[in-house]
Amino acid sequence: MSVTPRDNAAFEAGIKLGALYHQFVGSPVSLKTADSLEKAIAESISVQPFVKSISVSIDRQMIKDNLSSFGYTELKGPMLKVDAVIKYHEYEASVGIQFKDGYPLMFIKDIKEVKG
Amino acid sequence: MSVTPRDNAAFEAGIKLGALYHQFVGSPVSLKTADSLEKAIAESISVQPFVKSISVSIDRQMIKDNLSSFGYTELKGPMLKVDAVIKYHEYEASVGIQFKDGYPLMFIKDIKEVKG
Amino acid sequence: MSVTPRDNAAFEAGIKLGALYHQFVGSPVSLKTADSLEKAIAESISVQPFVKSISVSIDRQMIKDNLSSFGYTELKGPMLKVDAVIKYHEYEASVGIQFKDGYPLMFIKDIKEVKG
Amino acid sequence: MSVTPRDNAAFEAGIKLGALYHQFVGSPVSLKTADSLEKAIAESISVQPFVKSISVSIDRQMIKDNLSSFGYTELKGPMLKVDAVIKYHEYEASVGIQFKDGYPLMFIKDIKEVKG
Repeated sequence: MSVTPRDNAAFEAGIKLGALYHQFVGSPVSLKTADSLEKAIAESISVQPFVKSISVSIDRQMIKDNLSSFGYTELKGPMLKVDAVIKYHEYEASVGIQFKDGYPLMFIKDIKEVKG
Repeated sequence: MSVTPRDNAAFEAGIKLGALYHQFVGSPVSLKTADSLEKAIAESISVQPFVKSISVSIDRQMIKDNLSSFGYTELKGPMLKVDAVIKYHEYEASVGIQFKDGYPLMFIKDIKEVKG
Repeated sequence: MSVTPRDNAAFEAGIKLGALYHQFVGSPVSLKTADSLEKAIAESISVQPFVKSISVSIDRQMIKDNLSSFGYTELKGPMLKVDAVIKYHEYEASVGIQFKDGYPLMFIKDIKEVKG
Repeated sequence: MSVTPRDNAAFEAGIKLGALYHQFVGSPVSLKTADSLEKAIAESISVQPFVKSISVSIDRQMIKDNLSSFGYTELKGPMLKVDAVIKYHEYEASVGIQFKDGYPLMFIKDIKEVKG
């Protein structure tokens, strides 16, 4: 079986999560600036091809727990909760990043064919 | 149809390419240091789960064409040629990054079921 | 002469510009999302120690000139105009990033002693 | 007093450390690949202007302590030990990154005028 639109939906979804993670993890962040960083990450990824929707939230409690004596920390993988829907032709892949079992896991929640 | 190993092979392959691109693009590089950067990128990505093989090459001519007066440039997307095989359960996804039509494109070459 | 507050003002200013550049260059951006990326970059760097003020602007014309057929591009060094004031003890370093002679240059505009 | 070569030595040194940190922190790394990553980081930064020498070492014990169940981790700031000498005109700034008091600190060890 050659490469299908379903394969590409999953592939494109993976690209977006890998890009998001390695582009933005490491950014300085504090409780005051978490809002603008969340918004910028979501908007930045949303301009890429095939992104139907994306939401990004940064765990405020983990920011607090990691604050240095200077009052800030760096965005770390475990702080990220991401939900995204990537649409490639008639296939939609719902994917996410979530902290689980000690790691920031990337996973496919669902892939389905949609009409129209 | 629920999420399949084939879906995850494609998804994991996408993660690796997105990660590679956004982690290493921007690194200072010259003709003398292209070798060590290629090696480090390939080895770095190879430690991630499900990576069966990966090769990374940086276009020397594009480095030359982009050298600043200080004798170096930054790694740019179009300079990258990547070939990788991601294996998830019994599925192997062969994927790549290649400069084409003015862009660094990420694509699936092939996904297949392998025995053993 | 041992290390002085003036030295550290210049050093800290350099750290912020190097960090900003290598953290955010490569981020996907379009005309619609340039605002949120500018804001997030400025706020992210502003939480770091010794940053008194910072402004970040992304050249809209260069975004337009670099748009792919998908309607976006990546943040590139030449698109960035940054002005920042770093204060270390009684010294303020005014520094910037600006596109000049084909390169995104980082430079010190002024370092001065301030009272109070 | 206007901007001096000594100021620029400190400023350029800061740029290199900020760049190094935010370019490479987040890279996947294991005990087997730490060598190639160290080498690539050092060589990458060494091509930038005014870098006279640089050494980079990644703490192997911290890699071990952070290994995921997949046998790798990501390069984190505290794992980095960096020593660099930046030369601007007749001034040499010796700077470093070192883990201390719970943080990866960047600091100037010494700035001096050198003849020839």
